[in-house]
Order: sequence, then C-alpha cells, then structure tokens
Amino acid sequence: MLKQNYPLLVGLLLTLSTAAIAAEKPQNFTRADLAAASTLRERALVDSTAFALVESLTTEVGPRPAGSPGDKAGVVWALREMRRLGFANVRTLEAVVPHWERGEADFQVLSPFPQSMPSLALGGSVGTGNAGIEADGVMVKDLEALAALPPGAVKDKIVFFSNRMERTRDGSGYGKAVPVRAAGPSAAAALGAAAIVIRSISTSDSRFPHTGALRYTNAAPRIPALAISNPDADALVRQFESGKPVRVKLKSSSRDLPPMRSANVIGEIPGTDLANEIVILGAHLDSWDPGVGALDDGAGVAIMMGVAKLIHDLDARPRRTIRVVLFANEEFGTSGSQAYLAANEAEAARHVLGFEADFGAGPVWRLSSRVDPKQLPVVEQIFRALAPLKLARGDNEARGGADLEGLGKLGMPILSPDLDGTNYFDVHHTANDTLAQVDPQALRQSVAAFATAVWLGAQYSGSWERVTTDKPPRR
Amino acid sequence: MLKQNYPLLVGLLLTLSTAAIAAEKPQNFTRADLAAASTLRERALVDSTAFALVESLTTEVGPRPAGSPGDKAGVVWALREMRRLGFANVRTLEAVVPHWERGEADFQVLSPFPQSMPSLALGGSVGTGNAGIEADGVMVKDLEALAALPPGAVKDKIVFFSNRMERTRDGSGYGKAVPVRAAGPSAAAALGAAAIVIRSISTSDSRFPHTGALRYTNAAPRIPALAISNPDADALVRQFESGKPVRVKLKSSSRDLPPMRSANVIGEIPGTDLANEIVILGAHLDSWDPGVGALDDGAGVAIMMGVAKLIHDLDARPRRTIRVVLFANEEFGTSGSQAYLAANEAEAARHVLGFEADFGAGPVWRLSSRVDPKQLPVVEQIFRALAPLKLARGDNEARGGADLEGLGKLGMPILSPDLDGTNYFDVHHTANDTLAQVDPQALRQSVAAFATAVWLGAQYSGSWERVTTDKPPRR
Repeated sequence: MLKQNYPLLVGLLLTLSTAAIAAEKPQNFTRADLAAASTLRERALVDSTAFALVESLTTEVGPRPAGSPGDKAGVVWALREMRRLGFANVRTLEAVVPHWERGEADFQVLSPFPQSMPSLALGGSVGTGNAGIEADGVMVKDLEALAALPPGAVKDKIVFFSNRMERTRDGSGYGKAVPVRAAGPSAAAALGAAAIVIRSISTSDSRFPHTGALRYTNAAPRIPALAISNPDADALVRQFESGKPVRVKLKSSSRDLPPMRSANVIGEIPGTDLANEIVILGAHLDSWDPGVGALDDGAGVAIMMGVAKLIHDLDARPRRTIRVVLFANEEFGTSGSQAYLAANEAEAARHVLGFEADFGAGPVWRLSSRVDPKQLPVVEQIFRALAPLKLARGDNEARGGADLEGLGKLGMPILSPDLDGTNYFDVHHTANDTLAQVDPQALRQSVAAFATAVWLGAQYSGSWERVTTDKPPRR
Repeated sequence: MLKQNYPLLVGLLLTLSTAAIAAEKPQNFTRADLAAASTLRERALVDSTAFALVESLTTEVGPRPAGSPGDKAGVVWALREMRRLGFANVRTLEAVVPHWERGEADFQVLSPFPQSMPSLALGGSVGTGNAGIEADGVMVKDLEALAALPPGAVKDKIVFFSNRMERTRDGSGYGKAVPVRAAGPSAAAALGAAAIVIRSISTSDSRFPHTGALRYTNAAPRIPALAISNPDADALVRQFESGKPVRVKLKSSSRDLPPMRSANVIGEIPGTDLANEIVILGAHLDSWDPGVGALDDGAGVAIMMGVAKLIHDLDARPRRTIRVVLFANEEFGTSGSQAYLAANEAEAARHVLGFEADFGAGPVWRLSSRVDPKQLPVVEQIFRALAPLKLARGDNEARGGADLEGLGKLGMPILSPDLDGTNYFDVHHTANDTLAQVDPQALRQSVAAFATAVWLGAQYSGSWERVTTDKPPRR
C-alpha cells in the first residue's frame, strides 16, 4: 500500500506538516498546553483566591517583621493555607533571622521654628538612649553632596538627606534613591556625624514616614538613623532655607535582640515527566512592622499561592514541578532565601525557571525575562499567550526580585511579569501598607498574567538553558 | 437752546438711558466696580500671596490647638502678617479657650486576632489612666443601632461604631456621619459602656485616624473615646464578622487643663461712604494638633487675607469696611466667635454681609447665598461677574461656617463661594493636614472667587437686607 500510493501519501504528509507548522511554530507548547493557558488566564480574571488570602493574612496575622510573634504566626498561617489549598510536600525550611525591635522614634525641630515631625527608625538603627541626641542640623542632598562637604562639616552634627525619590513605573526611581537609606548612616558616621535623618524613600505626599533596612559598615560607628515623610522633609527644607541655624533633636528606643529562628514555607504542585525540574515561585512572608504587609509582600504571597491553586485545579498536571517558596526575612538581609540556597546547593541546577512577586498588587503591565537569548522566541510565544492582557514586551535583563537573586546568579532563567510600581512607593514600608491599598481587580489580573506564564514555563517542550551572561541583572 | 432743540435732546437722553439700562441693569454696581471686580479676579489667578501665607503659617507655627503654644504663636503670626500686608486697625480680641491635652492613645485588638491599630483620642476625651480599659467589644453601625440594642447589651463593654462616612462635594456626608463622634460617647455611656471607639469621620482609605471634638452631656459619665482609620475599621469589622468574641484594650493619657486666654485677630480695609457697614470675612486660626492645619483652616486664613490684600492694592477703595476676623478656637466649641459676638452685640446689625472660608483649599465650585429673596437678583449679578470661573449657582440656604453661625442667626446675609469638599475629609483633622495637600492653583482660584464676591458685596449700591426667615440654615 505504501508503494502503490506513494505520491499521494507524500502529498498528504506535506499538507499535515505545513498545517502543524502554521498552527504551532515553533512547537514549544502543545495545543493542549496553550488551551490550558487560556483557561488559566480566564479563570484567574474571575478568581478571588488571591484576594481572600491577602485579606486573611493581613486580618489574622498582620505585621510580620523578622523575629516577631507575627513572623511565627505567618509561618503557621502559610502552612495551614497551603495544606487547605491542596498543595503537596508542604513543609518549612528553617532560617535564622535578625531580631530588631523598632521601639519609639521622636524627631523635633527645636529652631528656628519648633515642630514635631512623625518619624520611623530605619531598620537596624541603634537607639539613642533616653536622653536623645540634640545637635545642629546640616542639610545635604545625597551621598555625593555629603562627600563633597569640607572636612569637619558634619562633625557632631545631625545630617539631613533631602533628596526626593522619582516616581517610575518600573521602580527604577527606588534604585537611585535608596543608597541614602542603606549607606547614609555609615557614610555620615565616617565623617563624624552624630545621627542622620533622611527624607523617606517615598513618592507620596501623605505624611507617612517609610522605614527600610540600613546597612552599617564596620568602618564607622553605628549612629541612629530616622526617616521623616515627604511633607515634613519639605517643611524641614524650608526651615533650612530660612537661612537661620537649624537645631534638631531625635530619640529612638530601637535595639537589637538575639537572632531568632523563623522559616521559609514551601509547597508544591508536583510535576509529571519532568518532575525533577523545578519552576520556583518566590514571594516573602515577612513584612515591615508599621503596616500589615498587604502590598509588601502579602500581595506577592497571594499571587503565587493563587497561581499554584489555579494550576492545581486544572484537569492537566504540569510537566515540571511548581514550587511555591514563601521566604522568611526578605526585608532584613534575605537570610530566608540564603538559607534556601544553602539547603539546595546541590540542587540549584534543578531550579530551571524562576518567578518572583515582590512589587505590590499589580496590575502586571509588562513581560520581561532573563533567559538565554536563543530562547527568546519561547518567551515571545508566552507573551503571545498573554495578549488579551495587553502587556508591553520588556527586555531580557529582568532581575526577578531580591529572594531569587542567588539562584539567578547561578544561572537560573527568570520570567518576570512586571507589576506596575507607579504607586507602590507611596505605601511600601509605611503604616499605610494595608488591605485598602489592594485593588482586587488588579490582583486578579496579576494572577492571570503569572498563571499563564508559570504554566507555559512548566510545559515548555525544550530545556530551559542556563543564563551564562556576565552582565549583572538590572536593579 | 434747550427749547429750540427739545425733541433732539429728548431723543439723546432716551438713547443714553437705554444704553445705561442695557449695560448695568439692574444698577446694583457701577461700571467701575464691575471693572475692578474683573481686575481682582484676574490678579488673584496669578497671585501667590495666599499660598505664601499658608506656607508661612504651617512652616513657622505649625499645629495651633486651643490653649497650646502654637495657638499663641498663631496670634503673633497673624498680627505680624496683617500689619505687613498693610491692613488697618489690626488688633486682637481676647477669647477664653478650653485647654485639652491629647497625650498618647493606644488601641489593641487582643482577640480573636491580636492587632495594634493607630488611634487618636477624640477632642475632649477623658483619659483612661495608665492601666487602660480592657473589655469585650460590641459593634454597632450608628447611634440608631446603639439605641436599638437590648437593655444591658453594652454594659461595661467597649462600643465600636462602624458606619462609614459618604464622600460628597458639598460636605453633606459629614453632617450625616458626625453625630457619632459628637454624641456617641455620652449615648454609649448612658447605656453603661466603658469606652467607645469610632471609625473615623473620614472618606480616606489611608491609615490616618481623624480626631475632632466630642460633646459630653451632663446626664452620663464621661467615658474615653478614640477614633481609628478606615482601613483599621474595616479590619475590625472583619474581626467581628469572624463570629469569634472580640476583646479590645484602649489607653489614653488625654486630659483637661485649666482654660487659657487666646485671641481673635482682626484687621480691616476701611470703607469710604459706607464705612460704618462691615463685610466680615471669617476663618479660624486654631487647628487640630496632629497635623499642621494647612487645609483646616490655614487655607481659609490665607484665602481671606489674600482677598483683603488684593482689595487693599486696588486703586479704588471699598465703600463698606472689609473686616477680616481670624477666629480663635473654632474646633473646640467656637468660643472665639462667641467672644466676638458678645463684644459686638450692640454692633451686630452693622455686620451687613458675611463670608467664611473653612472648608479647605478649593477650588470654589459653586456660589450659594443666604439673602433676603428680594435681593437674589443682586447675587445673580455677582454670579455673572464670576462667570469666567465657571461656577455652579447654588441655592439660598447657605450656612457660611461655624464661626458666622451666631451673626447668621441674627439675620446677617451670607454669600458663600463654596469650596469643593470632595477630598476634604480625606485629610481634615489628621496628621496628614499639611501644606502638601494645598494645590496652589486651586487656592488662587478660590481667592479669585472670594475676592470678586467680597468686592461686589462691599460695593453694592443698595442696602443688604437682614434675613428674616425662620428656616434654619442648611448644615
């Protein structure tokens, strides 16, 4: 039969193969996988799992700073919720975390115009003792301006950093402004300053000071560091601009306590034929203490758990294992993700693709990546599956987030549905980080974008190549 | 010549008089006055006097609660600025003001889900003593729901009022919501409650509690009263809705101190032929303490001083005397305006027209009034002079504000360029009442609207009739 009908059969085969190429070229995903991706996307847009999770986390647990009772309660909450949602291999992975206690902060301008300004200690700041610190103030714009001062200019003074963060959609304004918070205390201390006060790393005109970790170096004394809100920073600038000497006083009862045990919480949707390969979904369970950690990072926790739940509920099973890791202590030096990396050293290469959600509650506005450039067509096809969400196509220099940085440095590819950060720094690290800041529809859209990309990442018919570029990821 | 040209002259006179009627009918204002009104309006739209005043007041003085050092500093500031601007008859009029000290407030949910929620004592609240008050919570929507509870339902309990204020442009949502704050403490105390916590009288989703005065009756014990922000009230509602018993604890160190002396500050632009008649421009100099009183009522102070300054700088002089009165202590029972009324009892009828600015920094969106209905055509003509500002025409039931209520009850007509209150209750009575909330362009537009109306009110060729209606003004 073969011989007899040879010309006919050749024609038939050519026709079939042309049709297949037209429909699925390149054949990175089966039709069924693409159909399941659509199903996930559509279901996510009407699913309330993620919002219910962030509501529950913020209502029942609230603030979850490393080492606090809320930190422990968050771990218990995550184990309970992962089990309730039907995840497999739900477990903790211990991490040692710093334990810093905020205490109370007080900042007063004594002259020329006495004013009290709400303030927060920067995370890790030493306290002042009960007497506080009173000194003349010196205003500088940023670290460069501080370095340009004449010798002795800030000796025994309180340095005020006045520069304002720029609002951007991709968060790039944060990267430019945040060195003042991280490095400002030691930079000023090295020049003899008694303490520093910074304009919050914030885009908001509301009167919320923003906290966030500082990083003392060993080369300078540890001096206290507070943040004041943008409106108060504006008012303090006006006091300096009056031309009269500015005298200020600050007080903080913050202090370090012995480190504590906390834990990363892990749960999986097991893979099938490629179960040994892990697609990791990262978010962090800890939060700063002034708010209840709804945007940072309750929303990320909710997005990732919501994604895994939607995939769990599909008829199909994923090829690769989808592993949700809710990291401990992102805020205070990422000791949670470091513990994860240490425990998984031998298996780092099994982490074939990473996603991280640590930039608020959405919506997703762009798809970025960090993959071997040869595999950009695969990302392009995933991008097409996201078309109904009308995203922009980003570059191939995605960073993921702080918790996947270690795995990223080891060459793990990253897919990054980028959350819109335009308003994120209005709220981040403030008392105002509450559920009221989470837009349920934006959160659903974010789950839709992540779920589509995670699913296709887990189903990709080829192998995810390691990323070998030496170029550091974008910050 | 008269006789010879009689028909011609009659014709000429008829022509002139028809033209005059067409141009100025009804002849309530001269052409020069209408031209000066246009000049004022146009100058105001590019004038920065008002913004500079509210900037100076909030930067150099800051919070000005009755009886505080800021209250005294505000009086000194106002005298200095009125003199600097060239006002005449600048003086103070003493007022005795209550002196309540806020202290610190603390509100904790102990169970089912432990959470700490930022709170502020309501103005005038008694403190709790150091031990605080711990009790079961009872949630009610409003005063009606409280009254409908079975006997004993709130005995020794802490009552939580959960109702949310409605956002409106004219502030009518405030009138509906505020009785819980004013009357809630005594209503709950009369039923045996140990304390109350209210959802802030606020339209904001930001985590700022709002303070504001309560009014104890003598019929019930004085119990402590705190306010929490909308996001926290939402979270507390969710705790109640969990179905588990809610246990709460509150603490406040607020207390009453002996009354203090403060002062209304008065300055004038003297009138000419009708100098004995006063057009009064009211705003209040005091503020709540958590913020710096930029919107409430620094903006009103700035608008009224800016209006008077613009009129002062005209080539023309006003016919009636324009008197700016910056009242002491509006927030804590209007003892400043009561002192003004007492001191001016014999001269109340000389106050022929009133304006008040105590609703934020604008823009003005409507012109309302409270005049003898026969004089509505005069208001209509003033409204036409405001046409370039594209205002709506309001009704004739304007209230003015709290400080002119006494003069209003005595029949003084009110012209009310209505400030847009859509976002006012996001900020009012919070720590967030800062200069950053003042939009300079909206403030200029408000000065333009007030200046036009004040000037024409001072120039009106007729007599402002007393308002005799028994109908109470709109609240």
